[in-house]
Amino acid sequence: MMSDAATTPAVEDNRLRGDFLRAVEAALEADDAARVRELATPLHPADLADLFEQLATDWREPLAAALGDMLDADTLSEMNEWVRDEVIATLEPAQVAEAVSEMDTDDAVALIEEMEPEDAQAVLDEMAPDDRVAIETALSYPEESAGRLMQRELIAVPEHLGIGQVIDWLRDHPETGMDFWEIFVVDPAHKPVGTMRLSWVLTTPRDIPVADVMQREQTLIPVTMDQEEVALRFQKYALISAAVVDEDGRLVGVITVDDIVHIISQEAGEDILKMTGAGDGDINEPVLDSYKARVKWLIANLGTALISSTVIAQFEGTIEKMVILAALTPIVASIGGNAGTQTMAVAVRALATDQLTEANTWRTIRREIRVALLNGLTIAALLGLGVAVLLGNMQLGAVIAAAALFNIMVAGLAGVLVPVTLNHFRADPAVASSVFVTMTTDTMGFLAFLTLASLAGLTG
Amino acid sequence: MMSDAATTPAVEDNRLRGDFLRAVEAALEADDAARVRELATPLHPADLADLFEQLATDWREPLAAALGDMLDADTLSEMNEWVRDEVIATLEPAQVAEAVSEMDTDDAVALIEEMEPEDAQAVLDEMAPDDRVAIETALSYPEESAGRLMQRELIAVPEHLGIGQVIDWLRDHPETGMDFWEIFVVDPAHKPVGTMRLSWVLTTPRDIPVADVMQREQTLIPVTMDQEEVALRFQKYALISAAVVDEDGRLVGVITVDDIVHIISQEAGEDILKMTGAGDGDINEPVLDSYKARVKWLIANLGTALISSTVIAQFEGTIEKMVILAALTPIVASIGGNAGTQTMAVAVRALATDQLTEANTWRTIRREIRVALLNGLTIAALLGLGVAVLLGNMQLGAVIAAAALFNIMVAGLAGVLVPVTLNHFRADPAVASSVFVTMTTDTMGFLAFLTLASLAGLTG
Repeated sequence: MMSDAATTPAVEDNRLRGDFLRAVEAALEADDAARVRELATPLHPADLADLFEQLATDWREPLAAALGDMLDADTLSEMNEWVRDEVIATLEPAQVAEAVSEMDTDDAVALIEEMEPEDAQAVLDEMAPDDRVAIETALSYPEESAGRLMQRELIAVPEHLGIGQVIDWLRDHPETGMDFWEIFVVDPAHKPVGTMRLSWVLTTPRDIPVADVMQREQTLIPVTMDQEEVALRFQKYALISAAVVDEDGRLVGVITVDDIVHIISQEAGEDILKMTGAGDGDINEPVLDSYKARVKWLIANLGTALISSTVIAQFEGTIEKMVILAALTPIVASIGGNAGTQTMAVAVRALATDQLTEANTWRTIRREIRVALLNGLTIAALLGLGVAVLLGNMQLGAVIAAAALFNIMVAGLAGVLVPVTLNHFRADPAVASSVFVTMTTDTMGFLAFLTLASLAGLTG
Repeated sequence: MMSDAATTPAVEDNRLRGDFLRAVEAALEADDAARVRELATPLHPADLADLFEQLATDWREPLAAALGDMLDADTLSEMNEWVRDEVIATLEPAQVAEAVSEMDTDDAVALIEEMEPEDAQAVLDEMAPDDRVAIETALSYPEESAGRLMQRELIAVPEHLGIGQVIDWLRDHPETGMDFWEIFVVDPAHKPVGTMRLSWVLTTPRDIPVADVMQREQTLIPVTMDQEEVALRFQKYALISAAVVDEDGRLVGVITVDDIVHIISQEAGEDILKMTGAGDGDINEPVLDSYKARVKWLIANLGTALISSTVIAQFEGTIEKMVILAALTPIVASIGGNAGTQTMAVAVRALATDQLTEANTWRTIRREIRVALLNGLTIAALLGLGVAVLLGNMQLGAVIAAAALFNIMVAGLAGVLVPVTLNHFRADPAVASSVFVTMTTDTMGFLAFLTLASLAGLTG
């Protein structure tokens, strides 16, 4: 009978069950390695990696010891990088070298590149020469480039062969032992001239030449391309795998979508972390690393808050005469901040997905101003009416309504302009946007409201 | 010679070039349909879809008219849904029906489900009976479920066949004309018993039976599973395609990773939009829809800002005696808001990626409190010192430092607890988190600072 890998008793809704975790903890507590291995046996490597992440941190080292060689290459590849660092630190270099040798180049590189240089060297020294060369070659490409993501193992055939000959060759070389999703067709200089999906190969008679089956158009990935661009290209053209070429156009590797899915999710998810200045934002990151990443943005925020507060300080005389202004000022700033963040989130996502380009920047700005006008009129009406009624001061209601409308319009404009401008100067539009936009809406909110209140003679 | 689909002259870095867009606009302006078609001919469907999105909105209808039947199923599938709605509205139901008939079921369903019911019916009425039934069946599954994502076209074979027989059958049925990535093995009741990747089929001798090649363990997707769960499962188990089964366990369809990549990116990217209350956050969305989506969160924010401001209003007497407090209070609130948003972003991402579970909630809370303590001490020291020196008031410096430390600790706690609690009660942890967390940090910031200032007798 078949079993469903995702619904073994240990796993429910893609997550390890609580009672399963407690059973593993009990076995570790009892120092019963045999029971730990028995529990772990049915797990998919991805679930075994989850086990390390979900258990209390103190159990990670005993768990690794109990698993022994069950802690294999696949499991290490699936593990959160912070947790993996911890686990690898408990293993001998020879043990790590053995696991790394079994990995595809891309997974091996992902593991080695995160290690301390001396630990990485110790592992490389323990490896067989070809495995080591493969990894060292990959590491010679820039960080986060296609060269580090690609697998060097691939199937390439010349275009004069018949489909039957290709299949015969594959049957004669089962030792490649790898999964592949397309067969590349290359010229004598090993430059790609076409590609065949395996379903085309399987549905074509043996005597048809490769040249008649292959598709000549294909998406090629330069080996130095940044992984974010690679991910966008995979998304845009719905690729399952793609050829990687060096600067001379020769086929040097292949990237498959399963390595990209992880990057797509990470790149899309990290905008929220960048906008708030939360660094890598991983709950497994050491506390000190999180502190260092976050505190610098809090300090930047402190700086901008001090600047905005000087605006209020300029109006001390006004506030002294009408203290309720001190309670109302933050409302105008807060509503502008929220409106600005909404627009900024939309702009940052549109830039990240290549939807917002130079061709439609002005259209997008005009669009956001229209949305801001509608939002501003609604909020101004509600806030103005509320203040007028609750405080019984019509004029104060009119002043705060005007200030809120003005600030929401400013917020809409800043929410697009700040990320677009950062992007134009090749800075990451997500990273510092929040600081600039909030500073603008705070300062403008304070200034608009207190100036109007003074001018209206409310405090005269 | 081969051409590289992603670097035709019209496209650079995955984007359409500005001069290409201007050339198309000039041809449309001159009403030269032949030239428009000539320019569009080398484009990949994804780039042709981009052309509609990037051109000024007034050109979309003339472009659709000029392209005629070049505007095919693939191009419509690739188009942003708001832009597609606009384009489809300009086409005849028969023309839409023809395009939809050529699509895979998943793409056809994605298009039909977004149409107004009467327009959808008009298109369905124009379709051939089997195509219509296929789409109506898919539409009978819940929105955003696996049943709507799946393709019904798939290859399934019985396990007693030999590999050679499978290949012969495929060669005899080239009319399936579809791409597939794995072959499913089913029992007589059409329940899946195993799966074969095509690379295994190609590397296996003809006389080996399917039963010896197939993998019995596979990840099955229930037809009613939510698309977000499907995406997590694809990510976790690095799937290229997966079988979809009905409630009786029968194979009813297949989902491939290229349909999922889009969802992974969307789900990961939409947290930032939800947290800020930006709705769908699409720059092609009609202005009125964006207004409706965003204004309700601005109103919620207005409500919470009014509540927080009543705290300040309680301290009118205190502020009257020392107006500088009015300028300093927003700083304490702002820094707490930023710290809370950082923690919230981390928690929301960890929940979305299944990393934060009941098993490690307490560990994560303790971790965030430690980070908050370090951040709080740093910011308190800087802010306290700054205020003491700049305003020459040691006691005021001490008060604001204590308030900032307290508020950053509150922010750290609220930043985890709010999304975790929402998630526990099966609410979306991203959606309302921001409102709750900001209300907490604003209120607590105002309260802590003004209370301490009163107690310290600063204004006495």
